[in-house]
Amino acid sequence: MTAFKFQLDAIDPETGARAGRWETPHGTVETPAFMPVGTLATVKGLLPAQIRESGAQMVLANTYHLALRPGAEVVQSLGGLHRFMDWNGPILTDSGGFQVFSLAKLRQLTDEKAVFRSHIDGSLLELSPERAIEIQEQLGADVMMCLDECPPSGESREKILAAVERTTLWAKRCKEAQKRPDQALFGIVQGGVHQDLRVRSAESLLKLDFPGYAVGGLSVGEPPEVMYRTLEFTVPVLPAEKPRYLMGVGRPHDILEAVCRGIDLFDCVMPTRNGRNAMAFTSRGPVKLRNAIHQRDPSPLDPECGCIACQRYSRAYLRHLFVAGEMLGPILVSLHNLTHYQTLVRELRKAIIAGNAADFRLNQLARWAGQP
Amino acid sequence: MTAFKFQLDAIDPETGARAGRWETPHGTVETPAFMPVGTLATVKGLLPAQIRESGAQMVLANTYHLALRPGAEVVQSLGGLHRFMDWNGPILTDSGGFQVFSLAKLRQLTDEKAVFRSHIDGSLLELSPERAIEIQEQLGADVMMCLDECPPSGESREKILAAVERTTLWAKRCKEAQKRPDQALFGIVQGGVHQDLRVRSAESLLKLDFPGYAVGGLSVGEPPEVMYRTLEFTVPVLPAEKPRYLMGVGRPHDILEAVCRGIDLFDCVMPTRNGRNAMAFTSRGPVKLRNAIHQRDPSPLDPECGCIACQRYSRAYLRHLFVAGEMLGPILVSLHNLTHYQTLVRELRKAIIAGNAADFRLNQLARWAGQP
Repeated sequence: MTAFKFQLDAIDPETGARAGRWETPHGTVETPAFMPVGTLATVKGLLPAQIRESGAQMVLANTYHLALRPGAEVVQSLGGLHRFMDWNGPILTDSGGFQVFSLAKLRQLTDEKAVFRSHIDGSLLELSPERAIEIQEQLGADVMMCLDECPPSGESREKILAAVERTTLWAKRCKEAQKRPDQALFGIVQGGVHQDLRVRSAESLLKLDFPGYAVGGLSVGEPPEVMYRTLEFTVPVLPAEKPRYLMGVGRPHDILEAVCRGIDLFDCVMPTRNGRNAMAFTSRGPVKLRNAIHQRDPSPLDPECGCIACQRYSRAYLRHLFVAGEMLGPILVSLHNLTHYQTLVRELRKAIIAGNAADFRLNQLARWAGQP
Repeated sequence: MTAFKFQLDAIDPETGARAGRWETPHGTVETPAFMPVGTLATVKGLLPAQIRESGAQMVLANTYHLALRPGAEVVQSLGGLHRFMDWNGPILTDSGGFQVFSLAKLRQLTDEKAVFRSHIDGSLLELSPERAIEIQEQLGADVMMCLDECPPSGESREKILAAVERTTLWAKRCKEAQKRPDQALFGIVQGGVHQDLRVRSAESLLKLDFPGYAVGGLSVGEPPEVMYRTLEFTVPVLPAEKPRYLMGVGRPHDILEAVCRGIDLFDCVMPTRNGRNAMAFTSRGPVKLRNAIHQRDPSPLDPECGCIACQRYSRAYLRHLFVAGEMLGPILVSLHNLTHYQTLVRELRKAIIAGNAADFRLNQLARWAGQP
């Protein structure tokens, strides 16, 4: 674990936003950081050099998906995830729990394990804390996540409490199951939008002394304001000296608000998924590239962006690619959206170091609300 | 037309294969050359830098497809094809005739024009020699093609003769319709697999003194040997000092044989289309990447290839991408296949200059026939 080191370069006095530097076995990540999602050991449509070019320093891959295809043991036999997908920077794998609870058909859930059917071929599979760690050790990412129970939005307080207890139980077993010393294992705080449950979850996990903590179970359908409020009473319970990761979030707006509440690390499919669907995030707000208004527009998608899509092409060309069903459309707008996210966290980091994150937030919100 | 200059660096004594250097307004093309197909102003899935990286110097775009989407006038208003698709090298556009005869629903064909229904929305459209030139001048490629009539394989001699006559008639009208002095207009030789009709077609077109000649109407279903034989009696009729282009061909084997019969220029969708379908051309013959045999194979697709797919990834990873339906599979194997084609024509050029094209052909055929 000596390969990991997290240091804070600055804390914004007004918001508490943090600028950090996180050393991992595969390089340093400057925080706040956004991890592009490489579900199946590929950030959809992009080569590692392009991901790097967007400014990304760390990527995420999905344990559930990789365990089904091609199989964690296959990835291991090919030298692990870094070698397999040719990404030589840090990688984080989730535990697979989120997909088991959302994507797969859950058949049986006990303290022992989750039994579920594959969303691909319906085959019966199971995931226990021990198995989640075994798979993640086979994949060999820099950072692993504990198996947690993530209840759906709007679940009863009683069920959320039960999920918190199970998540703590599983976190202990994950920690005990860990064999490889070169991977950092993060705990995941659950508790829905209930302050007492979030605090209870965090405090139980703190006793296990994980090298980093994630906030899970947010962005699952609750209004953004409720998510921000939940962060306000959850983040302060987490240790200041360790990285804090908000799982699966989110829109640029959400990232801005969460950083201003002390979060360091993010992942989300939104920039790539929306990019594949012709929806671009720009410095002036979202742009839908299929709209007829762009048909003859020679101007760049975002004149303030340095990515290839903005530097080399017109909105008219990008629209043409989507209307014609050409792969290059999803490729270019995914690349643009990732660049937009990376620019956001990089600028935010600068603002934190300069001590004016609050001003940055206000200006940014005003710009996004402007004319696209 | 002074921007175009074709010079022969070498002619292989045994085969007659030519190594040339073709200056165009957008740079020099070393021949024999293979043009990747960018149907809708994009070589599917690849950025211009990647196309360039494969070794390609010139690309082709499809007049019929671009006239339907986004419209030639739209491309023109955006600065022409080079600017639109960000390809600063030479571009050739076909006339649209081939697609009208194969893809669209042809409704009426007279000496005046072809009337057809769009394959996209069924709208009624027409293409005349004058309109084909007008569209191609709007697109603004370096090289334009005359509108020709391309009869299907196995058509009667009588109909092929009629197509030859109409192709000559249309070639005259195309030449008369040309207004822009900065584009080279090529004539297209038709005549099926009949020696007298090919000669008749070529001789009629030679009178029009085009700056280059294409052989059309091949690779439309006839056996390869028949195509090679047709080239043997067609190519010698074409002027030695002008570039010769075999349209829509073909497999690496076909390119090798056609170069050894005096052809300089090729285009084909095969490297990219097959690449999207997990079929790779390698130095040892074709490889089907979906096959289970590659599931755990750590070896590169083609150890002799310098492309990213071969340098950075295993066959197992490439297979995984296709099995999982990931875009990166088609991207990487398209890139590989284009690199394979470019390597072939580059090596062939070296062999021609060294005067041993015949040996090169024999060795190459033996290698392709070997173990994949």
